[in-house]
Amino acid sequence: MQRPYLTRTTRPHKRQHMKIALAQLNYHIGNFSGNLQKMLDAVDQAKGMGADLIVFAELATTGYPPRDFLEFDDFIRLAEDSVEALARAADGIAIVVGSPSRNPVPEGKDLYNSAFFLEDGCVKAVQHKTLLPTYDIFDEYRYFEPASRWQVVAFRGKRIALTICEDIWNIGNENPLYTRCPLDELMPQQPDLVLNLSASPFDYTHAAERIRILKANVARYGLPIFYVNHVGAQTEIIFDGGSMVAAPDGRIFDEMPYFEEGVRVYDLDEVMQGGVQREQPKEKIPLIHDALVTGIRNYFHKLGFRQAIVGLSGGLDSAVTAVLAAEALGGQNVRVLLMPSQFSSEGSVTDARQLAQNLGVQYDLIPIEPIYQQYMRSLEPHFWATPFNVAEENLQARIRGTLLMALSNKYGPILLNTTNKSEMAVGYGTLYGDLCGGLSVIGDVYKTEVYELAEYLNERLGGVIPQNIIAKPPSAELRPHQKDTDSLPPYDQLDPILYQYIERRQGPAEIIAMGYDERLVRRVLRMVNINEFKRYQTAPVLRVSPKAFGMGRRMPIVAKYLA
Amino acid sequence: MQRPYLTRTTRPHKRQHMKIALAQLNYHIGNFSGNLQKMLDAVDQAKGMGADLIVFAELATTGYPPRDFLEFDDFIRLAEDSVEALARAADGIAIVVGSPSRNPVPEGKDLYNSAFFLEDGCVKAVQHKTLLPTYDIFDEYRYFEPASRWQVVAFRGKRIALTICEDIWNIGNENPLYTRCPLDELMPQQPDLVLNLSASPFDYTHAAERIRILKANVARYGLPIFYVNHVGAQTEIIFDGGSMVAAPDGRIFDEMPYFEEGVRVYDLDEVMQGGVQREQPKEKIPLIHDALVTGIRNYFHKLGFRQAIVGLSGGLDSAVTAVLAAEALGGQNVRVLLMPSQFSSEGSVTDARQLAQNLGVQYDLIPIEPIYQQYMRSLEPHFWATPFNVAEENLQARIRGTLLMALSNKYGPILLNTTNKSEMAVGYGTLYGDLCGGLSVIGDVYKTEVYELAEYLNERLGGVIPQNIIAKPPSAELRPHQKDTDSLPPYDQLDPILYQYIERRQGPAEIIAMGYDERLVRRVLRMVNINEFKRYQTAPVLRVSPKAFGMGRRMPIVAKYLA
Repeated sequence: MQRPYLTRTTRPHKRQHMKIALAQLNYHIGNFSGNLQKMLDAVDQAKGMGADLIVFAELATTGYPPRDFLEFDDFIRLAEDSVEALARAADGIAIVVGSPSRNPVPEGKDLYNSAFFLEDGCVKAVQHKTLLPTYDIFDEYRYFEPASRWQVVAFRGKRIALTICEDIWNIGNENPLYTRCPLDELMPQQPDLVLNLSASPFDYTHAAERIRILKANVARYGLPIFYVNHVGAQTEIIFDGGSMVAAPDGRIFDEMPYFEEGVRVYDLDEVMQGGVQREQPKEKIPLIHDALVTGIRNYFHKLGFRQAIVGLSGGLDSAVTAVLAAEALGGQNVRVLLMPSQFSSEGSVTDARQLAQNLGVQYDLIPIEPIYQQYMRSLEPHFWATPFNVAEENLQARIRGTLLMALSNKYGPILLNTTNKSEMAVGYGTLYGDLCGGLSVIGDVYKTEVYELAEYLNERLGGVIPQNIIAKPPSAELRPHQKDTDSLPPYDQLDPILYQYIERRQGPAEIIAMGYDERLVRRVLRMVNINEFKRYQTAPVLRVSPKAFGMGRRMPIVAKYLA
Repeated sequence: MQRPYLTRTTRPHKRQHMKIALAQLNYHIGNFSGNLQKMLDAVDQAKGMGADLIVFAELATTGYPPRDFLEFDDFIRLAEDSVEALARAADGIAIVVGSPSRNPVPEGKDLYNSAFFLEDGCVKAVQHKTLLPTYDIFDEYRYFEPASRWQVVAFRGKRIALTICEDIWNIGNENPLYTRCPLDELMPQQPDLVLNLSASPFDYTHAAERIRILKANVARYGLPIFYVNHVGAQTEIIFDGGSMVAAPDGRIFDEMPYFEEGVRVYDLDEVMQGGVQREQPKEKIPLIHDALVTGIRNYFHKLGFRQAIVGLSGGLDSAVTAVLAAEALGGQNVRVLLMPSQFSSEGSVTDARQLAQNLGVQYDLIPIEPIYQQYMRSLEPHFWATPFNVAEENLQARIRGTLLMALSNKYGPILLNTTNKSEMAVGYGTLYGDLCGGLSVIGDVYKTEVYELAEYLNERLGGVIPQNIIAKPPSAELRPHQKDTDSLPPYDQLDPILYQYIERRQGPAEIIAMGYDERLVRRVLRMVNINEFKRYQTAPVLRVSPKAFGMGRRMPIVAKYLA
């Protein structure tokens, strides 16, 4: 890597006493008064800690991602009102906050994604974002014009480079998405430090990647970086926080906790000295666990819901979902429903009941056979003597979905969907049946990872999930002696192929070249592609991987590619 | 408007004998062999008509929009193979075709959206698209790098300017989205004509708007424009065709039929003379009608389905949906199911049966009360003595959805969703109940427009929809004497507010300032926003308006804006 600016780290620093506060907050999209109040409270807290400057995240006024609300003039006016209110609070402390701003020229997009520098009641400077992520879940070029001017901000004898999220991510990539580099544009103005206002969503690779990128920036520019991220979830998109300070020596001076709000104050002088390395562990399954708990909790709290309902089948997916829901909402706010059929094994009911008891959640049992038999009587003149097939299987799943929704509508608990990513991928699920639910909890977790998650939960929570549930072969129990492997390859064969196709975007030739069986690969890819219509109609999926189903993966339904 | 290049129209033209074929074809996303064969057939046809050059549409090899398939190397290789095969067919005729091409430099996006000029078995020139629509349903900057070079192509003594769709749409807008204008870049090279390869989706305003834009280009540049569009539907996105030739005198020399494939050949000399004006009528309701029929037909044909099923309630929405399905697929391929309950009026059943007979479609009747009663018996220990509420209402809708899906799963007909745009907007529908279905037929048609569509269908088809169905007050019939107006404002008050909020993106202050009642406006906007979660899980909606629910309108679920 070129290090054109690295010599700057060696110049002598005079004693510096600037104190910088990073505010890692959980915003709520469109909740302008709530977001503003959180920030004003943080300003007070930072003042109390002697901070000269407090930094909030990207688009903190609106929450992220505001999506097409950005097309409403009213929405932008409310964001402007928030910035004004913050400017009034910038009294004895400077405030840096992300918010949309209007593009004054008619050509180009109407808005910028901006960082406002507020001081003494005024907007002292505005720096727009240059690199606008437009891939995966990101649509920023849909709304924003990129910056074409860059200006450091002078503050208490220091020159501050303001950057927004992606602006520092074009360093050290093998295949950069952009042709510009904002810090390269700013370096001739000799900044002393970099602030980065981010809205950088979690996936299980992200915390490590974020640190790699910060270090690459420090290596190139030799400047300290103060990085502030969102924390909390907005529907399917989860932010882990992990705001941090990188010292000019390339070490992480501090990393704020994952999945928690907080305000911390740093002395610039101490940061410049470096010599400290504070990082949190980044193990995949614990991170996924914490992200899912955050995702459930925030979905409920931000929508004003308290209670969840889960259909417990006696299988692993619904067990893991119920445990996560109880962790997120408290056992007293989770109820489960057991809906055995004539095809349910005795073990399924006892195992599910045992789990409910272990969790201390309310559980009810409604056998579906009487309803199923009534459907079959009503359908008899139309089904004639056709053999039992997918129609009767799906009917059972839809009766269960209908019963869960009946309790949801009667008493208000929100139905959680229990489908895992492997099933979502190959369409192994019934639309309007087990695919029901307001939020998909583990739809971005492959079945093989669900096993790992279950083991982790049992370690944490003293074996809450009965071993039977973990040990028995997966089955939808929609016909006698059914096993998932009747229709699907074993998950330890299926999941790696799905991973290559979905996360890695490898085509059939590439995956076969890795040594996977050609017929199996073609069959799996075909199953994924022809089931796009099911995924179109399923609940938002809590995103924990680099490629989740939903807004981040946009596929045509009517297509004939690998189908 | 400035007309800097207009003087060029007055220069003398020498006799020109170039013949240009426009191929307006119905492509299928990812169906490389099918798309290629269609184009090769059109090449043969054009050769037979003496054409020197044939022009296909934007991304014709892949179909439009290919979405994230573009991220697969395998997919791009297949598109490259198609271009190679077309180059081999460019023998005695030149071919212009839209296809993705690779960006050779690492910086920037990996692909261009390109027009290939093929002649004598070779790629003679490649021009990339400059203006990449990234709004509404469009995501082009997600995939493509914009052009930064522009070069006319010399062909048989003429200089041809190649443009792709949006490239000619930055003219004459009050608020241009882009800072560049590709034809301004090309004009110094003195082109003689402009080709435009488009993939420009239908909405009921689009045909008129497209002509306005072509005329604005002719007015500015004084050049003839040969414009080629896709025709047919890709899931929810419908292309109306309307390929055309604009003469340098500003008149539309010819406009190809809407919603039909075709190849037409034009003599450049005749086009240069102008003096002809051929345009088709552009009435809103007939256009919407033709688009919906095309949308249904293409959804089924491209997925390899033949038969549809519709739940007929005796109300207007399901009636209109059934008639459109019968027009699209033939009455013999549509079956309807009547599912009266204890709350259905006698008229509903007779009206629905009369409609089925008028259409000549198979109809069956399954009363839902026995199933409903069985659910209530099973739920009794859980519902205790709670009063009848939305739980019991939704239960009825879900029984109907389950019965429709049972027939769909048993015999294969695809369920069509019958929800209109007004209901979709305010969430007046039951998830997993009447919101079931593989395709939403009238989900982009407001209720007041559904009435107009019904009248139009009755004019066309001799009163196929019984007048009772049109005349009776709308009702979900889920409780005694229910009317839509119990929960909603009358549609003639509701729809204009929805239109201002959804299509026009006006906020509450703006809509109230138009004279609408403040409480009503706030109530309606709140209903729209809090029901985002329902729209997230509903079928793709055939898009006929400038702002349909689905990919073109991206809203957060967990949000607190106007909610």
